[in-house]
Amino acid sequence: MAAAQLTPAHLSESHRPTLDQALEAIRTRAYWSPHPEHPKAYGENGSLSAAEGLAAHQAVLGSRFELDQPGTDGWTGGEVSPYGPALGVEYPHADIEVLLPAMRAGMGAWRDAGAETRALVCLEILARISARTHEFAHAVMHTSGQAFMMAFQAGGPHAQDRGLEAVAYAYAEQTRTPQDAEWSKPQGKRDPLELRKTFTPVGRGIALMIGCNTFPTWNGYPGLFASLATGNAVLVKPHPRAVLPLALTVRIARDVLAEAGFDPNLVALAAERPGEGIAKTLAVRPEVRIIDYTGSTEFGDWLETNARQAQVYTEKAGVNTVVVDSTDNYKGMLANLAFSLSLYSGQMCTTPQNLLIPRDGIATDAGHKSYDEVVTDLAAAVDGLLGDDARANGLLGALVNPDVKARLEAAAGLGEVALPSREVTNPDFPEAVVRTPLMVKLDGAKPDAEAAYMSECFGPVSFAVAVDSTADALELLRRTVREKGAMTVGAYTTSPDVERAVEEVCLEESAQLSLNLTGGVYVNQTAAFSDFHGSGGNPAANAALCDSAFVANRFRVVEVRRPA
Amino acid sequence: MAAAQLTPAHLSESHRPTLDQALEAIRTRAYWSPHPEHPKAYGENGSLSAAEGLAAHQAVLGSRFELDQPGTDGWTGGEVSPYGPALGVEYPHADIEVLLPAMRAGMGAWRDAGAETRALVCLEILARISARTHEFAHAVMHTSGQAFMMAFQAGGPHAQDRGLEAVAYAYAEQTRTPQDAEWSKPQGKRDPLELRKTFTPVGRGIALMIGCNTFPTWNGYPGLFASLATGNAVLVKPHPRAVLPLALTVRIARDVLAEAGFDPNLVALAAERPGEGIAKTLAVRPEVRIIDYTGSTEFGDWLETNARQAQVYTEKAGVNTVVVDSTDNYKGMLANLAFSLSLYSGQMCTTPQNLLIPRDGIATDAGHKSYDEVVTDLAAAVDGLLGDDARANGLLGALVNPDVKARLEAAAGLGEVALPSREVTNPDFPEAVVRTPLMVKLDGAKPDAEAAYMSECFGPVSFAVAVDSTADALELLRRTVREKGAMTVGAYTTSPDVERAVEEVCLEESAQLSLNLTGGVYVNQTAAFSDFHGSGGNPAANAALCDSAFVANRFRVVEVRRPA
Repeated sequence: MAAAQLTPAHLSESHRPTLDQALEAIRTRAYWSPHPEHPKAYGENGSLSAAEGLAAHQAVLGSRFELDQPGTDGWTGGEVSPYGPALGVEYPHADIEVLLPAMRAGMGAWRDAGAETRALVCLEILARISARTHEFAHAVMHTSGQAFMMAFQAGGPHAQDRGLEAVAYAYAEQTRTPQDAEWSKPQGKRDPLELRKTFTPVGRGIALMIGCNTFPTWNGYPGLFASLATGNAVLVKPHPRAVLPLALTVRIARDVLAEAGFDPNLVALAAERPGEGIAKTLAVRPEVRIIDYTGSTEFGDWLETNARQAQVYTEKAGVNTVVVDSTDNYKGMLANLAFSLSLYSGQMCTTPQNLLIPRDGIATDAGHKSYDEVVTDLAAAVDGLLGDDARANGLLGALVNPDVKARLEAAAGLGEVALPSREVTNPDFPEAVVRTPLMVKLDGAKPDAEAAYMSECFGPVSFAVAVDSTADALELLRRTVREKGAMTVGAYTTSPDVERAVEEVCLEESAQLSLNLTGGVYVNQTAAFSDFHGSGGNPAANAALCDSAFVANRFRVVEVRRPA
Repeated sequence: MAAAQLTPAHLSESHRPTLDQALEAIRTRAYWSPHPEHPKAYGENGSLSAAEGLAAHQAVLGSRFELDQPGTDGWTGGEVSPYGPALGVEYPHADIEVLLPAMRAGMGAWRDAGAETRALVCLEILARISARTHEFAHAVMHTSGQAFMMAFQAGGPHAQDRGLEAVAYAYAEQTRTPQDAEWSKPQGKRDPLELRKTFTPVGRGIALMIGCNTFPTWNGYPGLFASLATGNAVLVKPHPRAVLPLALTVRIARDVLAEAGFDPNLVALAAERPGEGIAKTLAVRPEVRIIDYTGSTEFGDWLETNARQAQVYTEKAGVNTVVVDSTDNYKGMLANLAFSLSLYSGQMCTTPQNLLIPRDGIATDAGHKSYDEVVTDLAAAVDGLLGDDARANGLLGALVNPDVKARLEAAAGLGEVALPSREVTNPDFPEAVVRTPLMVKLDGAKPDAEAAYMSECFGPVSFAVAVDSTADALELLRRTVREKGAMTVGAYTTSPDVERAVEEVCLEESAQLSLNLTGGVYVNQTAAFSDFHGSGGNPAANAALCDSAFVANRFRVVEVRRPA
C-alpha cells in the first residue's frame, strides 16, 4: 500500500464501518467478528493463503528481524519452538536511553490526530495483521506450542477481535466528552457568564506491554491497542520465548504509523538479552505510565507494588473451579469438560483445575452417578477424545516449557491418579513434548489435600475433589475465588436453587460463570465483544478484557477554557 | 416523607428527569444545575428557609448526634469553629469489627436493585440534602471557616452538583453493558452456538471516603456518591475538625436507604477519637476496596503505597501557576486575579500561588507595564477589593487552622513583601482569625527562591515570580506541573503563539488551563457537569472530578452465561 493512500479519508472509508459495528457489538454484546476463523477464508483480497503464510514464516526463520528503531545497540534472540526447532531469529536490542525519548517525540502529533484517527490507524494495523493471519499462526504455534488450528484461531482472529474490542472501548471512552462546548451561565438581570471550552484526550506517556509465552497476541493485543488508541506510545516487551508474533505486530504497526504520517517510534520492540530481566528496569522508568502484564502472580504483584508511577493492569495466576451438582445431559457434560481439560494441554489461564464433585454422587439423566463413576466416566471421555494420536496432537499442542512438564510429573504424586497422563508422539515434530491431561482424585475434607487444590498447577492437571455436598462445594468455591482468584467458574446443575446459589457466590466474589455448558462452547473460551475475560474483581486479574475501566484511565482529558 | 412513598415508581417519577438532564449535561458539558445558588431560592416546597436552616443548625449544637449505627462503643467530638465557638456535638464512635460486617450485609440487595434504582436513591439523598442547604451552609461555615455565602454555595449547590455528576457518570458506565444478551454464533451448515448471557454490575466492597477540613461536602460527595451508586457500601471518615456536614449527610443517606427498603448501614460514619488516626487502620482493612481521599501529599502517598487491596483516588498538594504574558484588559485581569487570591483566604486547592511575570514587563491595553508595576497594581487591586471590612469578611472567611496562620506569617520572610497581609476583625465572630492575602516578590533566576515557589504554601500566600521571559515562564510552568502537580493553570496573553505554547505545556503535562479570565469566572472555580476538577494526570491528583475513570473501576461486571 502506498503511503499516499493512508489519508484520513482513506482510513475512514476503509475502517469507519468496522469501528461502528464494533461499537454496536460492545453495546449489544451479540455475536460479531470481522475476522474469519476458518483458514480457507484467507488467500484473497490481499490476505496470505496457507502456502503464502507458511512461506512468509519460513522466510523469517534464521534471519535478522530489522525494525529500524532508534538506539539499536545489538541483536538478540534464541527462541526455540516447543515443537523442537530453533527459530534462529535475531531482534534488535534497544538502548532505552535512546529509544524512550524517541518514542515520546511522536506523541504530540498522535494526540493532535484525535480519537477517531487513532482508532482508524489501529484498525488499519489490525487489518494488515489479519491479512497475514496464516503467517501469525505459525509464529504463535512455534512460540506458544499451541496446535496449528488453535494458534491460527486464538492467535489470529480471536486476538485481533480482542484488539479491535479494545480500540472500540478506547474510542467510545474518549468521545464521551465533546471536543468543545459553549458554556453560558445565567446571572439574573446581568449578562450571562460565557466560556468556550475545549477538551482534549491526552495519553499518559509510554505504555509498556509485557507479553506472555502462551498467548503472545491474544493477551497482548488488548493492552497494546487500548494504549495506542488512547494516545500513548507503546513499548512491546515480549516474553523471550515468544518474540516473533509481537515483533511481526510491531513491524506492521510501525509501517502503518509511518504511512499515515505519524512517527513509527510510537510503537517499538524491547527484546531482551538472555537473563537481562529488562521488564523490571522498564517498569519503573518515569516515562512508563501504563503497564499491561500477563503472567505469574509473583511478578504481577511486584509490578503493582513497585511501578507506582504507572497504571498497572495485570492478569495473574488463579484457580478455576467447576462445581458438579447435577446434569440433565451427562454425556454432554463429560464431553464438554473433557475438551476443556484437553485443549492446549490445559495451558490456558481459563482451564478448569478443580472439579468439585459430591462424594455421594450426583443426579443425571443417566441415573445417579457416584463420585467414582463421574471421575471414571470423565477420564473415559478424555481418553475417547484423545484416543487418536492425530486428533490428540491437534487438540493438545505441545507443552510450552519444561516447568509445565515437571509440574505435570510431580502432580501424579499428589493423590490417586484417576486419569494418567500419556505421551503422544507428534509425527511432524518428534521433539515436541505432547502430553494428555492428568486427573488426580483428592478428598476436599483432608487438610493435606488442600495445598494441592488451593494452588494453581498450570498445565494439563486437574483435581477431582470430593466434597461433602454441593453446599460444601460452594463454600470451597467462594474461598478459592476469594483467596486465589479465578478467571473462570463453571457449574452443572439442574436445580434452580443451586443455580441461584452458585450465581450468588460468583456475584459476591466477582467471578465469571458458565452454567451447564454441554455443547460447542467451553468454559475456557470467551468471545470478544460479548464475553468478559476475567472480572478484575478477584485476585486472578485486576482488569477485565475489555471494559470501560480497562481503557478509561489510559488517558486524561485536558480542558482549556477561555472567555467566549 | 412516609416510607411507602419511596417506591421505585415514586423514585423514578421524582428523579428520573433530573438524572436524564444530568446525563445530557455531562455529554454536552453545557451549563446546567438543578441546585439553586441563591439563598432566597430556598424556603418553599419543603426546603428550609434561612431562618429554619439556622434554627436546625443551632438545634444540633451541643447535642449527641444519633445515627443508630451498629457497633457504637462510645461518643466522640470536639469540633471548634474557625469562627470561635465550640460546636459541642458528639458523634457515635464505631467498633469497626461490628460495623464493617454490618455494612457488607446490605450489599447483596443493593446490588440486586440495579444501577437505575441505585442512582435514583442517590438522587433522593441529594434532594433531601438540597432541601437543607441552609442548614448545611452553617455546618460547612463553622467547620471549614468559609464565609457564609461561600459555605452556602460551595458547600451546598456546588457540592450537590458534584455528587449528582458522579451519580450520572456511575449510571452511564454501569449501563454501557446491557443486562442481558442473546449470543448466536453461526457454524456454517451446523446449528449456531447459542448462549443467553446476563451482566451484573457488582460493587467492590466497602468504600472509605476520607473527608477534608476545607471542603467536607464538595470534595467528599463525588467519591461518596460514585461508590454508593456503583453498588458499594460507603464508610465516611470525616476530618476530625469537619465532622458535622458529613454526619448530616450520613444521617440523610441512612434515612433514605431505609425508607427505600435498603439496609441503612450501606452508609455509615466513622468519627474518631482525638489522635486515634483511624484512617490508617481502616485504609488497610481487607473489606475496604475503594478509598477516596483529599489532603496532604504525605498521607495520599501513604494510602497509594499501603492500601494495596483498594482502588485509591487521591487529591493531594500542588502548586498552581498563572503565566502573565500580556493582556488586552489590564484592569479585568487585575480584578480577576485579586478575587482569586482572596477567596476563602487562598485556602483552596485551586488557588493560584505562583504568578510568573517577565522581569521586563508586559504589554497591556493600558500600555507597557513593568514587573514592578504589575505587582504593585495587583496589590492595589487586592487592597481595593478588601478595603471594606464587611466585604473582606464576606470573601475571606476565617483561617481554617493555626498551621495556615503560621505559614502565612513565615512566608513574609521569604522575600520582599509586595502586599502585606492584614488582620481583619469580624464583628460577628471576634475570635475568628481573618487575614488578607500576602504577596511576596521572588526572583525566578535565584536558586534560593526556588525552595519557596516550588512548594505548596497552602493559604493566603502568593509569589510574584520574576522570570526572564514568557518562554522562561513556560519552562517553569512545565517543571512545576511535572514535579509538584497543579490543580489549575491560568494564563494571560494576547499572542496566539504564546496561547498555543501554554496550551501545549498543559496538554503535555496534563493540567487544566484557564485563559484570559477577566470577568466573573475565576481560575479557582469549576462548574460540575462542564469543568473537570484536576486532570488526574499530574502529581496533584490521580483522578479528575468527574469522568469515566473516576467511576468505571468502582464496580466490576459479572457475566453468567448458559445455553439458550
